[in-house]
Amino acid sequence: MNMDYYRNTHGLDDGNNNYKSQDESPKFGIMFDIDGVLLRGKTPIPQARDALQLLMDERGERFVVPTVFCTNGFGLKEVKAATLSDKLGVEVNPDQIVMSQSPLEMFHDYHDKWCLVSGPDHDGGSVKVAKSLGFQKILTIEDVRKAYPYLDWVDRARWPQETVDDDHEFPAIEAVVLLGEPVRWETNLQLILDVLLTDGKPNRKATMKKGTHLPVLAVNMDLLWMAKAPTPRFGHGAFLVCLENLFKKITGEDLEYTALIGKPSEVTYEYSQKLIEEIATSLGAPHLNTVYAIGDNPLTDIYGANMFNKFLEKKKRELAHKKEDVEKQMECQLSSSPPSLFHEPSAPCTELTDCCEAVTSNGHIALNGDITNVRGVRRCSSILVRTGVYQPEPEAEDSDEAETLVDHGHRDLPYTPEITRPDHIEDDVKCAIEKIFKIEKWPGKKCALQSS
Amino acid sequence: MNMDYYRNTHGLDDGNNNYKSQDESPKFGIMFDIDGVLLRGKTPIPQARDALQLLMDERGERFVVPTVFCTNGFGLKEVKAATLSDKLGVEVNPDQIVMSQSPLEMFHDYHDKWCLVSGPDHDGGSVKVAKSLGFQKILTIEDVRKAYPYLDWVDRARWPQETVDDDHEFPAIEAVVLLGEPVRWETNLQLILDVLLTDGKPNRKATMKKGTHLPVLAVNMDLLWMAKAPTPRFGHGAFLVCLENLFKKITGEDLEYTALIGKPSEVTYEYSQKLIEEIATSLGAPHLNTVYAIGDNPLTDIYGANMFNKFLEKKKRELAHKKEDVEKQMECQLSSSPPSLFHEPSAPCTELTDCCEAVTSNGHIALNGDITNVRGVRRCSSILVRTGVYQPEPEAEDSDEAETLVDHGHRDLPYTPEITRPDHIEDDVKCAIEKIFKIEKWPGKKCALQSS
Repeated sequence: MNMDYYRNTHGLDDGNNNYKSQDESPKFGIMFDIDGVLLRGKTPIPQARDALQLLMDERGERFVVPTVFCTNGFGLKEVKAATLSDKLGVEVNPDQIVMSQSPLEMFHDYHDKWCLVSGPDHDGGSVKVAKSLGFQKILTIEDVRKAYPYLDWVDRARWPQETVDDDHEFPAIEAVVLLGEPVRWETNLQLILDVLLTDGKPNRKATMKKGTHLPVLAVNMDLLWMAKAPTPRFGHGAFLVCLENLFKKITGEDLEYTALIGKPSEVTYEYSQKLIEEIATSLGAPHLNTVYAIGDNPLTDIYGANMFNKFLEKKKRELAHKKEDVEKQMECQLSSSPPSLFHEPSAPCTELTDCCEAVTSNGHIALNGDITNVRGVRRCSSILVRTGVYQPEPEAEDSDEAETLVDHGHRDLPYTPEITRPDHIEDDVKCAIEKIFKIEKWPGKKCALQSS
Repeated sequence: MNMDYYRNTHGLDDGNNNYKSQDESPKFGIMFDIDGVLLRGKTPIPQARDALQLLMDERGERFVVPTVFCTNGFGLKEVKAATLSDKLGVEVNPDQIVMSQSPLEMFHDYHDKWCLVSGPDHDGGSVKVAKSLGFQKILTIEDVRKAYPYLDWVDRARWPQETVDDDHEFPAIEAVVLLGEPVRWETNLQLILDVLLTDGKPNRKATMKKGTHLPVLAVNMDLLWMAKAPTPRFGHGAFLVCLENLFKKITGEDLEYTALIGKPSEVTYEYSQKLIEEIATSLGAPHLNTVYAIGDNPLTDIYGANMFNKFLEKKKRELAHKKEDVEKQMECQLSSSPPSLFHEPSAPCTELTDCCEAVTSNGHIALNGDITNVRGVRRCSSILVRTGVYQPEPEAEDSDEAETLVDHGHRDLPYTPEITRPDHIEDDVKCAIEKIFKIEKWPGKKCALQSS
């Protein structure tokens, strides 16, 4: 993250921190979901502008509470920041944005491999987004269609009119990157399966050996999301349901993801956490205890926050155990240098990639023995709002009915009713902010609080 | 079927039957699959023309062996007959064609209901095809999109530019008819699910009660079919896999089909059987013992033929039992009139609809107590050819490897390796015809046999 840009934009380049003393600074940060919390489709949710104003200075020019916007949406973060700024009348910086695909920045191993990229065309399009993440050898579904003109066969209007040859120079595909829901699902489903079944050479007969297929990195598991219709609409998770089940039906085996990225995967929360801590540091508020995650989707925002809490607790236990081990080793090997198993908390990873080797299909981060990227934040507290996907009947809210009766989460993410239970439920995002201020005894800014 | 048309076309309107005596007439009929047997995409399979010539008179003008073409393809049978005639240089009559959707002619109960029709646009398009089957109140996916502009939400390029109202006069949908694989699967999948979840009013919130949803009639279960690519391509069965799994994921319940139509469902074999017997009768060859089903897909053509054999046997047993029961009842109730539980074999159903009330989701025909539509044909014998979907490694053919290791059949059709085992395997359709002639000791026509 380019903090200079942030500082310049936020007028923090005067050599003084925003907060004169750390006692005055907020001990909390806020992680907003966007769709169903701040916007619905392209329309602002009525309370969103007021809610964001509560987090800004008295002139309404800059955020004074560390704030990130973490969406399972697709696109360039510059586009999303501009949309939010435009729709909500509040200046949002691209560096406050976590798009679903943002953590792919860390997957350096794939950046120089020939990747088949499947995804949407809007907000920059999949090629531009993949490039922005560091991918250098990008092949699109359209590239594959053109190279192998007899593969995409559902739409007869697109059958070649004359006999055409395959492009025998077309590179062998080495990995599949699923950035979001495409259009013409039949085309993407067919071509992705062809690539997987043929180990990247889709004009050959199937060569895939049992239990092995090319790496698949998938971003955004949301089955449904709340747009303008009265019921939620298909998200990328719905496309993945089709892909997984067609793969299973055709091969008899389970599709295995090399990585699942986007909320509720831990890698996305860790990435967001790091971002919010960097923002907090730049505001002179380096000691955050709690990050509040405000979302509308129990299976995404709440599940993710709760999973991340478990992850934080586990990592703290592991850190304690490792410290004990190291101390024991040091006692035993007094003459040799102590092994460098972890950085001191005062020397955090400069890049998440240093710490994070891979994200497994169950969403767990495999760390390179380094766990100190989990720094100050002790807890992720979740607040569910009623302006999006979550809209139970009022009388059902306090009963078991309020729980998601059908598991709309991803196949690979274990579901229990507890894991989707929020710490708080509020009507809308403004109520959520006011709740946070009350919990944190944060004065907010007078004008905003007065107007509420 | 309009037999006058058939007679006129075939020059049988002279008052004489084709065969002077029934002893000379063939005791067999042939049921061809089309894709992978006679054509591959739009290209004829080399042996197809010669094979069909073997079944025709010496001038090659008309079929002398009762022959039908039964495809899981979609479209108007007139279009398919014209394509076959054009590509294979043999005059095929539309009344020899069984399209995947043809048995829907019998589903009169749905013809005056508001049906959402999903399917392809080619070869007449879904509306024309549905009309040709008798449906009178047809609503398309495009109609639903226009009536409810906020439902189809994956392709942002198609989002409405300005605020638009739902069409509140749009009729409540009463059934869903799936005629074949559409394009833009995401649109059809979303709108079909919306219709099912809302009991036909897709701009409402979900109202579907557990275990109940609108009737769904689905045509053509083929997961894959062989076109020009080296590996088989998605068929309508692949679309159904997506629909079934999204329905399950979203509702937690199984999608239940009111009817599954097309090979290998029994209703399609029964329909084809009836057609071939009518053709045989018009040729003066009314006593068929065997129908040979020639196909390239073990899970469709062979499965269907074997299932139909089981059905024939079961029905014969049931007929025998019912006769016994009636005779017993008659003995007991000598004073009352005998109950009319079945027609005499000499008085067959004039319409299959008279016999067929509904086809259940496992493909079984529920008969109105009438089983005499199963008439002369005693057996359906299956011949698998190697020019389509079925292309095992030569050395694997005699081993277990030759069996389909992964079940590509429909979810609701029980699979065993035996059910996909053909009576014969031949290289191509011409070899298959020669095999049949040998079994039947049929002389064929000299010229054709000489040229073989």
